Amino acid sequence: MGYVMLIIGELINTSRKAIKEAVEKKDAEYIKQVAREQLAAGANYIDVNCGTMVNNEAEVMEWLVNTVQEAVEAPLSIDSPDPKAIEAGLRLAKYGQPMINSISDEKERFEAVLPLAVKYKAKLVALCMDDTGMPETGEDRVRVAQSLYQKLTAVGVADENIYFDPLVKPISAVEKAGVEVLESIKLIKQLYPKVHFTCGLSNVSYGLPNRKVLNRLFVVQTMTMGMDGYILNPTDKGMMGVVYASLALLGQDSYCMNYLTAHRKGLYED
Amino acid sequence: MGYVMLIIGELINTSRKAIKEAVEKKDAEYIKQVAREQLAAGANYIDVNCGTMVNNEAEVMEWLVNTVQEAVEAPLSIDSPDPKAIEAGLRLAKYGQPMINSISDEKERFEAVLPLAVKYKAKLVALCMDDTGMPETGEDRVRVAQSLYQKLTAVGVADENIYFDPLVKPISAVEKAGVEVLESIKLIKQLYPKVHFTCGLSNVSYGLPNRKVLNRLFVVQTMTMGMDGYILNPTDKGMMGVVYASLALLGQDSYCMNYLTAHRKGLYED
Repeated sequence: MGYVMLIIGELINTSRKAIKEAVEKKDAEYIKQVAREQLAAGANYIDVNCGTMVNNEAEVMEWLVNTVQEAVEAPLSIDSPDPKAIEAGLRLAKYGQPMINSISDEKERFEAVLPLAVKYKAKLVALCMDDTGMPETGEDRVRVAQSLYQKLTAVGVADENIYFDPLVKPISAVEKAGVEVLESIKLIKQLYPKVHFTCGLSNVSYGLPNRKVLNRLFVVQTMTMGMDGYILNPTDKGMMGVVYASLALLGQDSYCMNYLTAHRKGLYED
Repeated sequence: MGYVMLIIGELINTSRKAIKEAVEKKDAEYIKQVAREQLAAGANYIDVNCGTMVNNEAEVMEWLVNTVQEAVEAPLSIDSPDPKAIEAGLRLAKYGQPMINSISDEKERFEAVLPLAVKYKAKLVALCMDDTGMPETGEDRVRVAQSLYQKLTAVGVADENIYFDPLVKPISAVEKAGVEVLESIKLIKQLYPKVHFTCGLSNVSYGLPNRKVLNRLFVVQTMTMGMDGYILNPTDKGMMGVVYASLALLGQDSYCMNYLTAHRKGLYED
């Protein structure tokens, strides 16, 4: 019993203006500060994403990974659509078990990323998507998850290293988008009780007001179904407060100690 | 598909000081105002509870029921440990289908309340408790629910009229109290897909800080598992906001219309 909730700090991403500028100016101190802040706020992994730097992504990845590791001794989530950039990051990642963000069941991506997962014994975000495109129903997601699970475990990837990402769509566009994700977690967990789950959070609320409310409640809903990993902004106090409160309500917090610590740190004050 | 979320407004209860005073002064206008406010805020049922008036509970119940019905044409939840007071209320309830709050599998209570449920064709809150006392595990709750279900349906109570209340205990005292409730909803729903669920919300957070946060997130968690009835304060905007946002995320709100209405009414502003 008991589980580790994986919080992957999402802030070091060149699609964010401040990070892009820091990369362009080689402002290592700013990158280090963002890494430290995320770790202090409760992140277990630091995501590193420079996918917008299309001309020299691998090079920027190396600089970011080295810079972050000068500031914090934390495991990294190496986040890129480009296998070359992923390997550039993995080669340098030196604290704990790295994470690859992400593989999918798209043939080209799968074949390029799989050897890296094996070589670096990495945790692996596995998107429930294949060459037929984004999944529609919960069952679509389960079908892709089954295909991925079989191929990954066949080459020795441990169940515990797989983090399925069901891919979240906006409920403003697809009424059942949220509930299809919840359903897919339930079904995949029944098939493979030892795998993990993760997702990003902003898509679900796209196009609606009070997005923070929806994003936070979607964390509660997915945690209730068994999701145990999120890529998010750990310096968002309200969001982290929701994570700690949910864990306490789910019986995953002895004597509510982490919840009480979150309370003392002021996470419930806004 | 689609379901009705039952919001039972809890404010007309003589354990609340202002209601007790209004009853003692026969201040009908105040009672009417509280009834109107709850209906306007989204309640589907108005709970009427004068269990603290031990000397003349049935008489007070009659006055309260008549007073409330002079103000609103809403169905009532007749809430008492005393079958005489329950019948006094049911006899006068005239709008829609009344609700009895509550029956349990305690022999004496069960035998006294069952004939009222049949006679008045009422919805029935069925506490998952028997003469062995408060339930501990999810399985305890399921065992009592099975016993109640068999006895209730044997005399013709429809599945749709049963609202199981798993009975919520404080997580500060019992670490797994929340998760046992979630588990019991899942198990009972597997057995009896057409029954409903309800609970009160304040117990879960007893003894902890930021109780509103815990209560609201427990609504989200239980709704995710399929709970579809709550006795709560509907004038608590934040709580009702959480209910509407959760319904939208659960795909139970066409075009997010109710969520957008809640937004326009300012339910997400605090």
